[in-house]
Amino acid sequence: MERIQLTEDLSFSRFVHGLWRLSDWNITKQEAISLINEVLETGITTFDHADIYGSYTCEERFGEALALMPSIREKMEIVTKCGIVLESENRPEHRSHHYNTSKKHIIQSAERSLANLHTDYIDVLLIHRPDPMMDPSEVAEAFSQLKKEGKVRAFGVSNFKEHQLSMLQSYLDEKLVTNQIEVSPYELENIHDGTLNVCLRERIAPMAWSPLAGGKLFTGEDDKSIRLRESLTKIQHETGAASMDQVAYAWLLKHPAKIMPIIGSGNIERIQGAAASAEIELTLDQWFEILHSSMGHEVP
Amino acid sequence: MERIQLTEDLSFSRFVHGLWRLSDWNITKQEAISLINEVLETGITTFDHADIYGSYTCEERFGEALALMPSIREKMEIVTKCGIVLESENRPEHRSHHYNTSKKHIIQSAERSLANLHTDYIDVLLIHRPDPMMDPSEVAEAFSQLKKEGKVRAFGVSNFKEHQLSMLQSYLDEKLVTNQIEVSPYELENIHDGTLNVCLRERIAPMAWSPLAGGKLFTGEDDKSIRLRESLTKIQHETGAASMDQVAYAWLLKHPAKIMPIIGSGNIERIQGAAASAEIELTLDQWFEILHSSMGHEVP
Amino acid sequence: MERIQLTEDLSFSRFVHGLWRLSDWNITKQEAISLINEVLETGITTFDHADIYGSYTCEERFGEALALMPSIREKMEIVTKCGIVLESENRPEHRSHHYNTSKKHIIQSAERSLANLHTDYIDVLLIHRPDPMMDPSEVAEAFSQLKKEGKVRAFGVSNFKEHQLSMLQSYLDEKLVTNQIEVSPYELENIHDGTLNVCLRERIAPMAWSPLAGGKLFTGEDDKSIRLRESLTKIQHETGAASMDQVAYAWLLKHPAKIMPIIGSGNIERIQGAAASAEIELTLDQWFEILHSSMGHEVP
Repeated sequence: MERIQLTEDLSFSRFVHGLWRLSDWNITKQEAISLINEVLETGITTFDHADIYGSYTCEERFGEALALMPSIREKMEIVTKCGIVLESENRPEHRSHHYNTSKKHIIQSAERSLANLHTDYIDVLLIHRPDPMMDPSEVAEAFSQLKKEGKVRAFGVSNFKEHQLSMLQSYLDEKLVTNQIEVSPYELENIHDGTLNVCLRERIAPMAWSPLAGGKLFTGEDDKSIRLRESLTKIQHETGAASMDQVAYAWLLKHPAKIMPIIGSGNIERIQGAAASAEIELTLDQWFEILHSSMGHEVP
Repeated sequence: MERIQLTEDLSFSRFVHGLWRLSDWNITKQEAISLINEVLETGITTFDHADIYGSYTCEERFGEALALMPSIREKMEIVTKCGIVLESENRPEHRSHHYNTSKKHIIQSAERSLANLHTDYIDVLLIHRPDPMMDPSEVAEAFSQLKKEGKVRAFGVSNFKEHQLSMLQSYLDEKLVTNQIEVSPYELENIHDGTLNVCLRERIAPMAWSPLAGGKLFTGEDDKSIRLRESLTKIQHETGAASMDQVAYAWLLKHPAKIMPIIGSGNIERIQGAAASAEIELTLDQWFEILHSSMGHEVP
Repeated sequence: MERIQLTEDLSFSRFVHGLWRLSDWNITKQEAISLINEVLETGITTFDHADIYGSYTCEERFGEALALMPSIREKMEIVTKCGIVLESENRPEHRSHHYNTSKKHIIQSAERSLANLHTDYIDVLLIHRPDPMMDPSEVAEAFSQLKKEGKVRAFGVSNFKEHQLSMLQSYLDEKLVTNQIEVSPYELENIHDGTLNVCLRERIAPMAWSPLAGGKLFTGEDDKSIRLRESLTKIQHETGAASMDQVAYAWLLKHPAKIMPIIGSGNIERIQGAAASAEIELTLDQWFEILHSSMGHEVP
């Protein structure tokens, strides 16, 4: 599998395995470690977490599985996130839903993630959402300390627009290494508003969440979903792809920004199918046919 | 009172006194100089004007008061603005409402402000509105000349978005020192569109006009005003604040951009109350509760 | 006629002659070369093409005329564009309408333009539309090669917003020399959204397509057209301009961004009339009166 170089000594697999629904998969830790190993065998080595996933439970389930076979830690990259505060029975001290990107919160959250994940280091820690109250000096101090202590190797953001990215970056010593954004044939906002262009300009490879639009591509009954399903199915037949989602992934892979789609499935066949979409090469005609289906009209 | 450093040798008080309704207060020059002295006693040393306030009358009323006690000039910072042309009986030569940011107009306007204000120098001169016809070379020449002649110490802008700020800045020798924008718990545009982030990125402390949304927080009957009034009142009780507007000011002060709210009141008790809001420390829960009330929904 | 310096050794005439409807003018090549000579006599030396104009026919018609008098090539600047793929009987190999800014397509398109135009070099080659699939590295390679081979002297873009311009620029060795955008008294988008400001900031003189809004100024029946026609006619009388379109051109010329309007007419009187509008000097009152008519309200 292709790898994307984020820094001189850190690379991600082109596809990323997303664990945000791990707690919903109802699997034992033995089953989880098996799944992780099968994912690694596809060439996918990057695993995407957040402190809040599964109401603050997913990191721990992953960590318990990892503890069964600690040697594989070195074969993977772990991404996690912080900055959202959720009300949860697992965080009784939280009184309301808000963001917290203070130095104290970032460090505590990262340390708790380390404990939950049963690991000594996080490969990349992301600020989960642009916080209108973010004090960039505090974020910079938190990042410096976590880096110096060896707890986090590199830092990034998620769902940031240009003004948020360039503002935070201007306070940091090191470059942000990724921006995890929503992008799919269905969701074009980050293409239209320039966020992907800013990633290209800043040489930041983006990760894509909901690359299949949370299933809307398959079951959505709105006009856009219906139009897209028709195009994707047509192009599936033209290309000999095994499934419509392979075409959707191939559409993301063809973009020059080096988008890294996150596959949020616990089904190894689905993950293998997604990984295999790297073999599907769309023509420009096909790429724009999908774009036009999504927009509902052609480019000017 | 906290001070905000704008340049190496220029700082503003955290709160600014706004004179835009001075001519409506119906006070004599003796009463005006008394008010100015009482304001200075609160620690507020920065006074905000514009050539056009009171249909070109407010600067002069302030200047007449200042002339009664010229020694206090050194204890204050005077901000004024230029660039809007209004039809007014006080400017019979004006034939229509438009902007004028030509070199000639900026210099003439600044010199007229100096005369009206009975002072030898303006601390900070702002371009009042982004002018779609602004020739940045002319602005640069005007600023250079006014600076060289000792008539203005530093320059800024008002109501500028990023593209206007970065464009003008690229023609100037010295950094713009502030951007005076509308921001309040009610008016979030400059938070959402990135203008505050650009201030943070460029290390420009913004001034906030209409920090109480022109009274809408107290009397507005729209849904947003009603929601905000409820939150602000609740948090007033939680914090022991003396008034709802103290909570609104505290909300602005908590933001990391170092927002300097402009208090546009002629009532010294109100000004003292505003200044005292620096003592109110909101929690993040409270800050976001106000944000959510304003937006009508929670952050994602 | 005024000239606008794009690089140290390349300048355009302030007005540009646009050939996009050349194939509709139904003129012989003898008539075309006469028109070109008459245009040159007005001082307009810059001619604007695109590969796709006239469904891929206009460049060739111009080239055939130029071949009758090759000596005038040195007296003009030729601009052309690439990057749009249209279905056309003249390009049977095209299967759908889309964009193509691959290295291969840019080079092939430029070489075909050279052949069609009967010239050895293009003065400025533009990317016609921002391509959401643009790989800036490929564009950079194509530009480098075309420059090195002496086929193109300089490069620019068309219809680019800031994020597209700054992204592409960050991959290029040389500065983009123009951004050809739609701007007219009717169409203010590129004024309001900051595109013109970005041109000013980057010292890029923009070319303006549809400077008369495709005739809407004369015949549009929408409210904006009616309001504008009234203002333009009033100001025509005030200034003694020969026509309403002279006022519209004068409005563009007064803007500090050094807008170069493209005159898309085959009628030499109309072209001469446009060129003569450089003599019309609008006051700021008049400039804003037109702006206000277009917006439907005054500036704040």
